[in-house]
Amino acid sequence: MVCEPFHADFTGRLTLSMLGNHLLNCTEQHATARGFGMSNFNDESYTWVLSRLAIEFDALPQRYETFEIDTWVEKVYRLFTDRNYAIRNAEGKTIGYGRSTWALIGIQSRKPVDLTSLHNGLLLDYTCPEQPCPIDKPERIKVTAEQPECSIVAKYSDIDINGHVNSIRYISHVLDLFSLDFYREHPLRRFEIAYVTESYCGDVLDFFVDHADPTHCQVEVRQRKDATVVCRCKLVFQ
Amino acid sequence: MVCEPFHADFTGRLTLSMLGNHLLNCTEQHATARGFGMSNFNDESYTWVLSRLAIEFDALPQRYETFEIDTWVEKVYRLFTDRNYAIRNAEGKTIGYGRSTWALIGIQSRKPVDLTSLHNGLLLDYTCPEQPCPIDKPERIKVTAEQPECSIVAKYSDIDINGHVNSIRYISHVLDLFSLDFYREHPLRRFEIAYVTESYCGDVLDFFVDHADPTHCQVEVRQRKDATVVCRCKLVFQ
Repeated sequence: MVCEPFHADFTGRLTLSMLGNHLLNCTEQHATARGFGMSNFNDESYTWVLSRLAIEFDALPQRYETFEIDTWVEKVYRLFTDRNYAIRNAEGKTIGYGRSTWALIGIQSRKPVDLTSLHNGLLLDYTCPEQPCPIDKPERIKVTAEQPECSIVAKYSDIDINGHVNSIRYISHVLDLFSLDFYREHPLRRFEIAYVTESYCGDVLDFFVDHADPTHCQVEVRQRKDATVVCRCKLVFQ
Repeated sequence: MVCEPFHADFTGRLTLSMLGNHLLNCTEQHATARGFGMSNFNDESYTWVLSRLAIEFDALPQRYETFEIDTWVEKVYRLFTDRNYAIRNAEGKTIGYGRSTWALIGIQSRKPVDLTSLHNGLLLDYTCPEQPCPIDKPERIKVTAEQPECSIVAKYSDIDINGHVNSIRYISHVLDLFSLDFYREHPLRRFEIAYVTESYCGDVLDFFVDHADPTHCQVEVRQRKDATVVCRCKLVFQ
């Protein structure tokens, strides 16, 4: 695919949220081709839920630059599966990697499905545990800030077909916590997000931020109404 | 192209801002193939500036649905050119049309170029004035509201490579003025935007809204600091 000019940020490089979209679309295509995609399951009332996503990169593609995404299943647990990504530039050089964790849940029951027995265990046949993904696995994120640094109200553009705030929109809102000057001095090199609960249109979301040092930052997004944690992020800057 | 699931809104249909992105990308490809694209000009220090955009549609593509965009130049004036779009579904049925007006400006001078003499008038050879675009041309938009209905601060995700708020982001922010319940009762059928001045990261933007009746709405976006008008929009709902 190509980094379309309107998908680039102020530096002229692909935005991380657009890369996140591409990773999710790539996941969907890869899974659908094997009979495990959302479109395969929706009739059966199942949906994949993204639990964690970590992306680490040297530099994202520039405007008009072509790139490709390779994806593979690293491991299948009973209730979760780990899927990895490699992002390659036009010369085939890997410029970034991603790690994600997914659960398959019943749309009505909201309960996770046993992945090891799904389709008679066929998902296990698609694992490529030997393919390298040389970035750290996501770690537990703990935020200690007691006052929110910023708040938003979830609106129309945030909401997906399930009525929830779209998983990628949290990434955009977290990236909006930093100034252009900060990005100029400290380009982002790694972004991790762990999704905890859903949020809905009209919800007030508070962003609690720990700035451990200029290059490491942790964010916890909470519901204003009951302080429920919605997601947690970790950002590593250069 | 396909309506990717993460490009759909809560109704499961392509978001208008994503359609806007597609129209702009389509413009760029069409222009580049004829030697008039941004990528052809950037070395020569020119850039196309979108002045107006109007999109009218029956229903936007649903998730996983394929669609295509056809574009053509309707007319070339001295300082502006009118470009139209037809959006067709997988069966080739036209589901929407677009009209846009563009100027080509010098990146340093910020002054518009005479389009009739550009490349020895070659642009005139590409006009297709006879191709039908059966939607109304954009009209002058006049907003009378005296108090803003909502305000935002322009942030990282809003900003493009020129350091301005991305033209598509204004569409997203305007769409965010309405609730999901309102969209359920009154699906959007037409969106017009006229760009007046640029805004920048950190700018506080006020949204003044006239609700003429439930199905017609006009919005003026102004800079908080000096009340400069940034853009004006007109929305027609069903």
